[in-house]
Amino acid sequence: MPTYRLDIEYIGTRWHGWQIQPNDDTIQGEIEHALTTALRTEISITGSGRTDAGVHACGQVAHFVASTEIDTHRLLASLNGLLHTSIAITTISEVAEGFHARYDARWRMYRYRIGTIPFAIDAPIKWFVRPAPELSRMNSASALLVGRHECSSFCRTASETENRVCEIFEAYWTQDEERGESMVFVIRADRFLHGMVRAIVGTLVEVGQGKREVEDLTVILQARDRTAAGPAAPPHGLMLEKVGYDSR
Amino acid sequence: MPTYRLDIEYIGTRWHGWQIQPNDDTIQGEIEHALTTALRTEISITGSGRTDAGVHACGQVAHFVASTEIDTHRLLASLNGLLHTSIAITTISEVAEGFHARYDARWRMYRYRIGTIPFAIDAPIKWFVRPAPELSRMNSASALLVGRHECSSFCRTASETENRVCEIFEAYWTQDEERGESMVFVIRADRFLHGMVRAIVGTLVEVGQGKREVEDLTVILQARDRTAAGPAAPPHGLMLEKVGYDSR
Repeated sequence: MPTYRLDIEYIGTRWHGWQIQPNDDTIQGEIEHALTTALRTEISITGSGRTDAGVHACGQVAHFVASTEIDTHRLLASLNGLLHTSIAITTISEVAEGFHARYDARWRMYRYRIGTIPFAIDAPIKWFVRPAPELSRMNSASALLVGRHECSSFCRTASETENRVCEIFEAYWTQDEERGESMVFVIRADRFLHGMVRAIVGTLVEVGQGKREVEDLTVILQARDRTAAGPAAPPHGLMLEKVGYDSR
Repeated sequence: MPTYRLDIEYIGTRWHGWQIQPNDDTIQGEIEHALTTALRTEISITGSGRTDAGVHACGQVAHFVASTEIDTHRLLASLNGLLHTSIAITTISEVAEGFHARYDARWRMYRYRIGTIPFAIDAPIKWFVRPAPELSRMNSASALLVGRHECSSFCRTASETENRVCEIFEAYWTQDEERGESMVFVIRADRFLHGMVRAIVGTLVEVGQGKREVEDLTVILQARDRTAAGPAAPPHGLMLEKVGYDSR
């Protein structure tokens, strides 16, 4: 059966997250609705993973299986015409049968943006943090996260996931080149637990502000207890940047 | 009397433009209201110029005169706390008495962003244009605008401004470095007439799409008639980027 990959960009502000829900507007629900309308047949999509309410994406990936071949060029135009302006399908491509957006994903990369001087243009996608954290302290702490770890301390307590081992390939902060007073956290891992990036960012910002020591990160990981880490950073600074597959 | 300069950033989407109006929410009105609350005395501000409903700014400048010296550091924090998140005061600085945000401005610079493939993150600040215009054609046409011209053909017919001569110092398109399929128009002039940038962009895009010839720009300028030019581009792609003063 022909299988299609969707590359998706969205501003999560007005949505109750990715995952379809019976009574709330969700990104998956909106896309499935548009696809069903455009193709005049019920379509379900599978995303690479969920994003929480208020979280954005510029590189979400999903797939669906169709009963017949589709003119992807025409579908792209009609889908984007149907979707709310806060969601865009950037590409539709036919992929090998059996492609699975979630199981085939090798890694996910997130960015978290913070700003330390007042801003308005980026207000929907950047967290305002005062006092300004020290970049070098946050980077020293981030380095302690790289590797294979049991990450319960950064997982929402309500999560039912049993295996909480994640391999973090990269974790670092950079100064945003375009705007001097912005800092961006980049983290790439094989998988992320529920609320993980936001818990890590909330903790790292506390390190940057001198409320915690750099070495605390090792202690927090060993505690395997969410209360050992800092508060979750708000969702609006977070963006799912890219999902990595073997083929590309 | 102590005079203060405000540097202002805003997303214009939800506002009825800059200029204060009795029954509509405007950016000037919102800032004056916040200033009056913070300083516990009625304050009026003067902007470098108006921006239309839906137009954004990252470099708007305004000034106000106070009866006593102000702690600008504290005022900045309290103002940004009072303002809607779509407006931010980025700096407050004391300036020489007599400084006038409008009369002292030597030039204004605007940017207009267009995108030719679907996008969501930048949807509030970028115009989606299909078919994709040719950058080189738009640049050849833009070059004809540079210089001192009577600009009635790019001025809203309802405008009562009599002197319609503008000196355009720069006008060019660039490919957005961050996102390949975006193009940005930069225009800098001593002054702009009502609706001028949007009329110019609407016309240049038609040139880029082959609906008009590059040389038409000269004919349009000579016509001194708004109907000679193309339709106005929508407001949400436009941003007041910077206002130039002698001192900086």
